[in-house]
Amino acid sequence: MAKKYSEIHDIVYYQCDTNGTLTLPTLLNIIIKTSSAQSDALNRGSDYVASFGLAWVITQYDIAITRLPSSGETVTVTTQATSYNKFFCYRNFWVHDEAGNECVFIKSTFVLMNIENRKMSSVIEDIIAPYESEKVKRIERGEKIQPVENGRSQDYRVRFLDIDGNKHVNNSKYLDWMTDVLGFDFLTTHTPERVLIKFDKEVEYGEIVDSIWSLKKQDSRPAVSCHQIKVNDTICAEATIFWQTKNE
Amino acid sequence: MAKKYSEIHDIVYYQCDTNGTLTLPTLLNIIIKTSSAQSDALNRGSDYVASFGLAWVITQYDIAITRLPSSGETVTVTTQATSYNKFFCYRNFWVHDEAGNECVFIKSTFVLMNIENRKMSSVIEDIIAPYESEKVKRIERGEKIQPVENGRSQDYRVRFLDIDGNKHVNNSKYLDWMTDVLGFDFLTTHTPERVLIKFDKEVEYGEIVDSIWSLKKQDSRPAVSCHQIKVNDTICAEATIFWQTKNE
Repeated sequence: MAKKYSEIHDIVYYQCDTNGTLTLPTLLNIIIKTSSAQSDALNRGSDYVASFGLAWVITQYDIAITRLPSSGETVTVTTQATSYNKFFCYRNFWVHDEAGNECVFIKSTFVLMNIENRKMSSVIEDIIAPYESEKVKRIERGEKIQPVENGRSQDYRVRFLDIDGNKHVNNSKYLDWMTDVLGFDFLTTHTPERVLIKFDKEVEYGEIVDSIWSLKKQDSRPAVSCHQIKVNDTICAEATIFWQTKNE
Repeated sequence: MAKKYSEIHDIVYYQCDTNGTLTLPTLLNIIIKTSSAQSDALNRGSDYVASFGLAWVITQYDIAITRLPSSGETVTVTTQATSYNKFFCYRNFWVHDEAGNECVFIKSTFVLMNIENRKMSSVIEDIIAPYESEKVKRIERGEKIQPVENGRSQDYRVRFLDIDGNKHVNNSKYLDWMTDVLGFDFLTTHTPERVLIKFDKEVEYGEIVDSIWSLKKQDSRPAVSCHQIKVNDTICAEATIFWQTKNE
């Protein structure tokens, strides 16, 4: 059984949107802080990984949301690097509220990238060993991201505060561009129940991205939104977001 | 002597820019969290103020920066509502590092606004009393904001995640629009030493703002930038930022 690691986090007003609940970009920032802290605690921090000429890159998230925590709440974020195969490492995250109820459960896929040529590396045992993840043969495909149909488009210029090191956009930013297009009326009457997101290509400082989306009903759900982030017609990220009507 | 109130804050990577230091918008978010916490501790939180039909609004900041804290540091934020007159309340903030060195000192001006008609109210003794601020006659004018000369302009659309309650843009966002225009090369080779910012008019969801700026040398300083945020030719905020060359 792979090691688990937990951190306490206070949800502050500036991490919440006009609904008073945690924003999706900040949710991703908070969980990644916890996995970084686990890596540091196991002496496998980013400097150690960089000593192999490598860096961790997240390729996809499957985010199941029971409810988004509100401003003023204290949550516990738990992470576990459950399993890995030749190229992919699978890590789970849980967000629990003070009563111990699960608010969010996230499955994620990490790969090691060569810092020089930005290509995927095979997993290195020395980097992964302390997490005590299970070695597996199978590659988890995850639920398929639904295509955008007759999409509308809105452009966004990559800003200075959108990038982290290396002039690349932080993964969490894509969900800002993807949800923003849905507008105030939609975003104050709906809440995300599940988010499938896949990162295909890095976006750089100064680029103009097209945030393309379509919206439909599906099964009993009031709304499913399909998203692509493109730069010059190249897909950089794709997502499907399943929405519920917000309870007031 | 007015009461002081302090909070500890961990500076996390996602609160920092590509330089690895705290962003100006997050600096403002963190200090306001501390003044809100003081108000809550004194039973003068936003609900109490709202019971008078009022809300606090910040009209200006004078931010003196010795150094911006880095990712991984733990800082102490201290605040003190020093004095007030008929309409204006003056509040100071300090950010100290773990060694007790002052990183940032901020003077701010708060006013009470009528929530219904969005007009300024006179200060109500019952709201202000527990802070033990000194009652003064004088109105602090603060250092004058320098005009933009032959300014260039870049437009920004107000996004869903830019607004807090009431569909208004959070004050901290203006510094994102103001600094972003200066570009990657400038922002990775310069660091702000002093920021004077004045908020004149609220910006709302969906509006397009023009971020107008000019850049000059002044005295021994390598760069002084002058800024305006306008919506349809109305000035919503103005700032002067004094920059130093960044030490690598």
